[in-house]
Amino acid sequence: MSEEAEDTAAENTAAEATDLYDDDGVIRSEYLARVGAAIADRDILFLKEQVASLHESELGDLLESLQSEQRRALVGLLGEDFDFTALTEVDESVRREIVGDLPIEQMVEGLGELDSDDAVYILEDLDPEEQDDILARLPFTERVRLRRSLDYPEETAGRRMQTEFVAVPPFWSVGQTIDYLREDENLPFSFAQVFVVDPTFRLLGAIDLDSILRSRREVRVEDIMHETSRSIPALMDQEDAAQLMSQYDLLSAAVVDENNRLVGVLTIDDVLDVIQEEAEEDIKFLGGVGDEELSDNVVSTVRSRFPWLLVNLATAILASLIIGIFDATIQQMVALAVLMPIVASMGGNAGTQTLTVTVRALATRDLDIYNAARIIRRETWIGLINGLLFAVLVAIMAFVWFGNAQLGLVIAIAMVINMVSAALAGILLPLLLDKIGVDPALASAVFVTTVTDIVGFFSFLGLAGWWFGLL
Amino acid sequence: MSEEAEDTAAENTAAEATDLYDDDGVIRSEYLARVGAAIADRDILFLKEQVASLHESELGDLLESLQSEQRRALVGLLGEDFDFTALTEVDESVRREIVGDLPIEQMVEGLGELDSDDAVYILEDLDPEEQDDILARLPFTERVRLRRSLDYPEETAGRRMQTEFVAVPPFWSVGQTIDYLREDENLPFSFAQVFVVDPTFRLLGAIDLDSILRSRREVRVEDIMHETSRSIPALMDQEDAAQLMSQYDLLSAAVVDENNRLVGVLTIDDVLDVIQEEAEEDIKFLGGVGDEELSDNVVSTVRSRFPWLLVNLATAILASLIIGIFDATIQQMVALAVLMPIVASMGGNAGTQTLTVTVRALATRDLDIYNAARIIRRETWIGLINGLLFAVLVAIMAFVWFGNAQLGLVIAIAMVINMVSAALAGILLPLLLDKIGVDPALASAVFVTTVTDIVGFFSFLGLAGWWFGLL
Repeated sequence: MSEEAEDTAAENTAAEATDLYDDDGVIRSEYLARVGAAIADRDILFLKEQVASLHESELGDLLESLQSEQRRALVGLLGEDFDFTALTEVDESVRREIVGDLPIEQMVEGLGELDSDDAVYILEDLDPEEQDDILARLPFTERVRLRRSLDYPEETAGRRMQTEFVAVPPFWSVGQTIDYLREDENLPFSFAQVFVVDPTFRLLGAIDLDSILRSRREVRVEDIMHETSRSIPALMDQEDAAQLMSQYDLLSAAVVDENNRLVGVLTIDDVLDVIQEEAEEDIKFLGGVGDEELSDNVVSTVRSRFPWLLVNLATAILASLIIGIFDATIQQMVALAVLMPIVASMGGNAGTQTLTVTVRALATRDLDIYNAARIIRRETWIGLINGLLFAVLVAIMAFVWFGNAQLGLVIAIAMVINMVSAALAGILLPLLLDKIGVDPALASAVFVTTVTDIVGFFSFLGLAGWWFGLL
Repeated sequence: MSEEAEDTAAENTAAEATDLYDDDGVIRSEYLARVGAAIADRDILFLKEQVASLHESELGDLLESLQSEQRRALVGLLGEDFDFTALTEVDESVRREIVGDLPIEQMVEGLGELDSDDAVYILEDLDPEEQDDILARLPFTERVRLRRSLDYPEETAGRRMQTEFVAVPPFWSVGQTIDYLREDENLPFSFAQVFVVDPTFRLLGAIDLDSILRSRREVRVEDIMHETSRSIPALMDQEDAAQLMSQYDLLSAAVVDENNRLVGVLTIDDVLDVIQEEAEEDIKFLGGVGDEELSDNVVSTVRSRFPWLLVNLATAILASLIIGIFDATIQQMVALAVLMPIVASMGGNAGTQTLTVTVRALATRDLDIYNAARIIRRETWIGLINGLLFAVLVAIMAFVWFGNAQLGLVIAIAMVINMVSAALAGILLPLLLDKIGVDPALASAVFVTTVTDIVGFFSFLGLAGWWFGLL
């Protein structure tokens, strides 16, 4: 966030925070209407006083709640008072729309005020030519910093890091450090650690601010610094970096290049975002949607959901082919057509249960080669026991419904077979996908229900056909 | 975390961190074997040097990787060197097992060394009598602190807060504050903010540590403090508190009682846990599993999954009843039995897609009354367009397979009807559940597939029966 914006925001949002959102955490309609009116009236005074002073996340929420034309008008009216940090808080489609509209001068000015990680976050969405255009107009130091971040691959720690940080030599005293912090004008807006580096910027350690505050002025920096073995290589995947920071409860972590030279700092709020995105991704993949956002339009959403449905169509046809094998059997005993979805559906649900637990355990690294055998055994037992319990229930139901005890026996056996298959598919498929380097959340669900549909229909219809001699 | 443990940990984990885990983030088998051997040999020296010094999260991972008997033996052998903070890092079942085994003296000693939030985390699992037993043996100040947290309801900010914090009066200078921090022995182990309070402990503001370090000694605290309008009422739900801290990127936030008196502090690492738990809960509910953990045994897992499967059985039977209505139709045209699962399955998947997006949008508060109408329209359009696209595909398939163009037409119409119903069910059901105060992730999935099964079978079989005159 830019320093100017923050100063105003810190004072003003006090009153806003209570008023802005209703009990459901939604921006109040009165406020939205007031802003809408101010935009229509080009009431710049109100907008600069009441909107420009919002916290970046509040301004982001407001932008997302406005109509597309209002949004553009608002950003235009705010001019240089528009806090670019808000752009890091909105959906990608909203960001693109706003950025696409801005004159390059305003982009350059706005980005120049941001911390490097926020600037990179906005820049990385642009075409290489646009990036170059903007970078060329920025002051030298800033250009080099942003370029360095952008040169790291997407989704690495280097891309997400902030290149502004505080570093001091090990031979300084606490007093010298405090004096430096009091006098230097070019410090980052906020920081949680001071890093200790040698003359070539190789990382030696770090000091938490509370350690500095507790120590006497004459204490030497190297005596209170702690080793930063948990520094993060710039090329580390951002999820691994997030995992590391979350495991060790780090508020900020040093990012180093291949020569262990300090190049930036990752902060906990970036990590929070990465972890939330990761969980979000698992949920969406398991639900059969890609990385769509609520603000996406109909066409792009259809396009993103279509492939998942197409794969499902293929597997549904596969299941139908299995049923097709037994069409003569069904014709002689229609009860089979009535009952067959029960076997398939129970298997599908039991498989999804196992799958959900497995995918999350893989994501949180609770499942590994040491306990895999134990978990597979556990799931098989659960499948068997639940299979037996529901076998009894459906056998009774089938008998009561169709007055045919043998039909009850057949569906019971098919149920046990399918529930055990469901358990095995629910754990083995994601393990296999993980092993070959595919995100298990991505494809497991459809594979698991394919297995349970096929096994369910085949075992039930096949058994029935054989038992009643109807094949 | 206890101060002693942390001091050692900070120095030692350097070397461990690289060695302890393999590339998949799993504890190395050699290390596990080494620890196992040390436990078997009662090699206390190795355990105290190499295990007691692990970071709390590493020790937690180790405990979870060990067999149940090894775990107990290890905790026993470590004795007072066992870092109780590790108990906050393991699954509830593992924690219960370890705690159930410990003599009360060791519990009292271990808990006494923890920060209050960690102590409460462990205490809240115990029976009220056990809690009282332990609290009675703790020193007065600590007992009062823990009791205060435990008196707040579960899942509130008051229950999760840490009661150790640093507070200073507004008329102090920066110099006085730094001197106080240098001299006071009873400061919390680590802190990111200093709070400013009046003589009755009413909260006036807060100062980030970097602001203290940047300011000259003579500056007055009240001149650099910022208002803490975003202080958190102790009775606020922990998820709302987490949402607030995450929205405003707060590293720590003051927790206040109904009189705005400072009672504790919530830190970002607690928030990280709450946010992760919340996403986890949504994933598990959508997948039809409760709050089970990987370390739960077979019986308790069966018991927790059974109800979800039972509900699914009920809805599957409902779908079968619909098919049963059309048994005569099916008998005359077995192709219907072969094709009907395709209509139901496509609807189920499309409904799950909409549902997943809706549940997450509700959880992250991106969906609200202002955009609900827009999103419902959007989803209906998506359902209609995907319905039409897949109608064409299945019509062609049915025609090729069964050589019956009219059958193709019937399945196409049923497909459109079911895909639109799926979209509406996928968004309206979770909105309704949310409105009446039920977690939409909890029950929506099964309701949505019930709707798509019933509509799918009914529209396809009903249309076919009417069209071909087979009713």
